[in-house]
Amino acid sequence: MVWLPTLHGRRCRWTDCPTRLDTLSSGRIMTKTKRQRAMPANKSRAKQVPPDHLRRRGEPPSAHVETGLLSAIERLLRDGRRFGALSVEELAREAGIGRATFYLYFRNKGELITHLMQQLTREVEVSAGDWFRDAGEVDHQTLRRALHGIVGTFRRHQGILAAASDTAATDPQIETAYRAMMDRLCQLSRQAVRQVDHSGRGTGVDPDRLADLLTWFIALYCARFIADHDDAEIARLIDLFVHVAGRSIFQDPAAASS
Amino acid sequence: MVWLPTLHGRRCRWTDCPTRLDTLSSGRIMTKTKRQRAMPANKSRAKQVPPDHLRRRGEPPSAHVETGLLSAIERLLRDGRRFGALSVEELAREAGIGRATFYLYFRNKGELITHLMQQLTREVEVSAGDWFRDAGEVDHQTLRRALHGIVGTFRRHQGILAAASDTAATDPQIETAYRAMMDRLCQLSRQAVRQVDHSGRGTGVDPDRLADLLTWFIALYCARFIADHDDAEIARLIDLFVHVAGRSIFQDPAAASS
Repeated sequence: MVWLPTLHGRRCRWTDCPTRLDTLSSGRIMTKTKRQRAMPANKSRAKQVPPDHLRRRGEPPSAHVETGLLSAIERLLRDGRRFGALSVEELAREAGIGRATFYLYFRNKGELITHLMQQLTREVEVSAGDWFRDAGEVDHQTLRRALHGIVGTFRRHQGILAAASDTAATDPQIETAYRAMMDRLCQLSRQAVRQVDHSGRGTGVDPDRLADLLTWFIALYCARFIADHDDAEIARLIDLFVHVAGRSIFQDPAAASS
Repeated sequence: MVWLPTLHGRRCRWTDCPTRLDTLSSGRIMTKTKRQRAMPANKSRAKQVPPDHLRRRGEPPSAHVETGLLSAIERLLRDGRRFGALSVEELAREAGIGRATFYLYFRNKGELITHLMQQLTREVEVSAGDWFRDAGEVDHQTLRRALHGIVGTFRRHQGILAAASDTAATDPQIETAYRAMMDRLCQLSRQAVRQVDHSGRGTGVDPDRLADLLTWFIALYCARFIADHDDAEIARLIDLFVHVAGRSIFQDPAAASS
């Protein structure tokens, strides 16, 4: 379910990364040095992290690694586990990859979440369609489609949202990643609400502040509740979001509710 | 600042509790038993918790104890400490009371927060004025006064809100207390929005769902951001809340914005 195509029939970007893992010789990475072989087991395990000149950090992980890790996080969180309590070893095992493969791309769990949050941000941006597109249409219909897309994307990736909100308070790296996502979504919302305002259909309220407030309202609410909602509740929730955001942004309430 | 009278000029209920501590013989509580005297220091310290027949749990703590503990939490959180990392000993020391006095009323930190959340709920209820009063006025002016009161109360007690949201994810007792507050506030909001609906001034949207959504929007936003806002930002925030809630609840947007 997590890796379905987007609502607009385009392939999800997350699965479009080149499969770089195929080009790797995993044997080279796993081969122990003489010093590692001499170490006690637990110290040796820590040394499975490839040295920096072998690491591919900054390069996108293969779709296999990325989807595997994402699905692993989602499953473990659904089973009631907390992201903060998961070890890299457990994540890798659940994802069916080796620890060394994990460390090939990510220094730690925080870096993984940062990467996944960046992908989520891009997916939300695409799923919001014209409402978030510079010089796109900004009417009630595009707002409704945008909220449909955004809520759908948040819902598909609720595991990452939960992991981010679970650990943002205690992990500055994840707080930064979550904040970067929200900054981007606020920026896109501001652009849309400003356009409504410039066209004379706005409510006369500071468009930037209003856009920020509505964006945070929806993101905070989704992070907290979306996992509990079934399809019917999600449909009602989107209707309510359209009602509240539409009437707050557009002067003409009749059109906003249509 | 924390213990100012409410916005309506009434004394804050939190300070109206009888000063029961005055009636206590602290010597009786602190006197060690023969067994305690024989214990090593750290075990002996744990035994400062009064036995159940001496404890006053269920009775309201004195204003001195309550305000002391609340101010202590607020100071420690302002200093960047996390509620989950504070010990009862540290809280009691910061509040200028003994550990034994703390345990006279509260079994643990969670029970303290539960108590403070219950007080906060009652204070929010009072500070919202007519909007939350059964058969009270439900027009745009009472909505504005209610949001002014609610945001002011959340702001005065941001330390508890922060502590609750800091620990709710990991502490079922605090999650229950936070949930109880939100259930009560949603119930009061539903009552108000239903009245607007019955009077024919509503927007035709399910009043209960709309009330719940707006209540959670505002509470989640305040829990996350209110500590960062200065007076001018708070005033603008209340205006925005009035704009969004007013236009969502009332059919007539011109009146809602007035």
